[in-house]
Amino acid sequence: MKVAVVGVGQTRMGEIWEKSLRDLSLEAGSLALQDAGLEGKDIEALFIGNMSAGRFIGQEHLGALMTEQAGLLPIPATRCEAACASGALAFRKALFSILSGHHEIVMVGGAEKMTDLSTGQAVATLASAGDQEWESHIGLTFAGLYALMARYYMEKYGLTREELALVPVKNHMHAMKNPYAQYRYEITVEDVINSPMISDPLRLLDCSPISDGAAAIIIAGEKVAKKFSSPVWFIGGGHASDTVSLHGRKSLSSLSAAIKAAEIAYRQAGVKPKDIDMAEVHDCFSIAEIMAYEDLGFAPKGKGKELLISGETKIGGRMPVNTDGGLKVGHPVGATGIKQIIEIVRQLRGKACNQVRDAKIGLAHNVGGSGATAIVNIFSREGG
Amino acid sequence: MKVAVVGVGQTRMGEIWEKSLRDLSLEAGSLALQDAGLEGKDIEALFIGNMSAGRFIGQEHLGALMTEQAGLLPIPATRCEAACASGALAFRKALFSILSGHHEIVMVGGAEKMTDLSTGQAVATLASAGDQEWESHIGLTFAGLYALMARYYMEKYGLTREELALVPVKNHMHAMKNPYAQYRYEITVEDVINSPMISDPLRLLDCSPISDGAAAIIIAGEKVAKKFSSPVWFIGGGHASDTVSLHGRKSLSSLSAAIKAAEIAYRQAGVKPKDIDMAEVHDCFSIAEIMAYEDLGFAPKGKGKELLISGETKIGGRMPVNTDGGLKVGHPVGATGIKQIIEIVRQLRGKACNQVRDAKIGLAHNVGGSGATAIVNIFSREGG
Repeated sequence: MKVAVVGVGQTRMGEIWEKSLRDLSLEAGSLALQDAGLEGKDIEALFIGNMSAGRFIGQEHLGALMTEQAGLLPIPATRCEAACASGALAFRKALFSILSGHHEIVMVGGAEKMTDLSTGQAVATLASAGDQEWESHIGLTFAGLYALMARYYMEKYGLTREELALVPVKNHMHAMKNPYAQYRYEITVEDVINSPMISDPLRLLDCSPISDGAAAIIIAGEKVAKKFSSPVWFIGGGHASDTVSLHGRKSLSSLSAAIKAAEIAYRQAGVKPKDIDMAEVHDCFSIAEIMAYEDLGFAPKGKGKELLISGETKIGGRMPVNTDGGLKVGHPVGATGIKQIIEIVRQLRGKACNQVRDAKIGLAHNVGGSGATAIVNIFSREGG
Repeated sequence: MKVAVVGVGQTRMGEIWEKSLRDLSLEAGSLALQDAGLEGKDIEALFIGNMSAGRFIGQEHLGALMTEQAGLLPIPATRCEAACASGALAFRKALFSILSGHHEIVMVGGAEKMTDLSTGQAVATLASAGDQEWESHIGLTFAGLYALMARYYMEKYGLTREELALVPVKNHMHAMKNPYAQYRYEITVEDVINSPMISDPLRLLDCSPISDGAAAIIIAGEKVAKKFSSPVWFIGGGHASDTVSLHGRKSLSSLSAAIKAAEIAYRQAGVKPKDIDMAEVHDCFSIAEIMAYEDLGFAPKGKGKELLISGETKIGGRMPVNTDGGLKVGHPVGATGIKQIIEIVRQLRGKACNQVRDAKIGLAHNVGGSGATAIVNIFSREGG
């Protein structure tokens, strides 16, 4: 059996102090229903990706809470968590629920409300996605973890500070047309390398922001999905794990879980990296996008930067990446994996803010923590 | 396709200060592998139920962490959360992963490390399973929520304080033979009604404890499961949601999600309440077990206490409930749903600490929060 995305909805991302996590989730879910032309009573189960509402807003048990809030009672609700890959994880569990024969139409949401805490508290909460006993407890933040990877990569492959800056410069440029982006202004390489130091070599403009936001999609099994005008088909996916702490890894310049997840996804989809028309990758820090190019097979090891220098991953290039601006312009952690799928759906429907001409196949790459979880999903315009 | 439990393992429950959540999880997982006669390399995916490690020990991203700790990398890992129903939720998602055709053998763990916080902090963390905006924020704890239900039930159905005490008295008696129980001593009705008041009418001995502990099971698809000597078959399950806050409910004397989940489970299993030989029910507070009898169809509404007075749910009775002592003698919240399944497996294998003669069918009833999530699963000795 095949599964397709038949509806999508998202909120803007940003410091949305006037709305709660409930409000944001309800807004995204309602927009997804509206987009699909469905009503709440059509939804058979709810899945929600959320990293840490327990710490961000003092609320666990989000599955039932969102089901109640959306008026969907008494359907079953599932919250999934794998740090910043919680969204893609929820998608995969929802997918399995359809493939297992239990459901025909389910909603998958992702949401996070991060700005109710101080920045320091939010950074400490995010650090709970790292290894508490080996890393977070001694003060290693996520910027610190990715800074270690960035420094190692730069030394090993001769990546310069200026070249690294090309990632956020591209993504901010893409975000200019994205109405949901937290930031809609262009930045230059000079802006990046002169922005405040966060964790050497990473500066403020290398980092994704702390964001509020929610995203929701509706997925359906083949029989039902075919009744919709523009279903976007899931054609393959992979999910793999690695050590949570960096010290246990064989390499600091690639994410082995992402390599493994991509390998499984390509095999299931029956496509190769060159068949991908556009991708949403997990650019939580600038170095992460360059490593993703290589882990996903878009560039040979150590050559990721060439896709940036040549403009191939810019809109108009051969294979645009993060056409909505990526995580750099909004990263409500639990929502990110779903928001990535939404951008792919928009591209494959031909209705994206930066439309890739004749996009047929899109790939989403969602990473949890510093790479302990990686999930890759591939979608196609055709295939029903 | 059918699915069976082929291996089980658990730690003792209690204040286990000398062991971390990693240690406990590894111990339970290793025992499950040993019980199944399998090795780590045989496991294709890991699911873990955990309510709030982010708050209890500052660690999110438990799926990958436990996969690493157990030496199972790079298999996919999923953490599921639905408050105290996180264990049964993880079981259901694992079940779907097998039924979807993605895996043949998976491990499902449940774990919680609750005693690293002060009791006050632990109670506040547990309150995050209630509605933060409507209940927890104004100081309503779980003892308070269940006290409201107990008071309502007692007034409406004429349940006396002494009759309510029969629940923990029975469960402590059952726990005398359970080597994993946090408490192994008998208590009397007088002990219960003279124990310190927690939230009127509930007293200390009406409440399940704050516990550390972990439990793990290994489940397999039909083809693989048949190779094991004593597989215990899953024959039906249901999962439903209700409002998180009590004020939104139609009734305070039953859990509508549990009634719904049970209805679905009985239908899928093709059995009726009278066919159940033993059950593990969610007795987080004494009143919850009496409501469970009625929600599950073991007794008519308002008559649940009669099963206690007559001794029918005591070991030796017609349908023993909580034969290992239930939540009253250990409730590491994320582990509870898995621990319940383990007790059913032991009973159906004929190897329980309080063996029910010729037990063929067992039922597990796991509740999240004050009833916003309810999951019922039914297992059978035969059916492969």
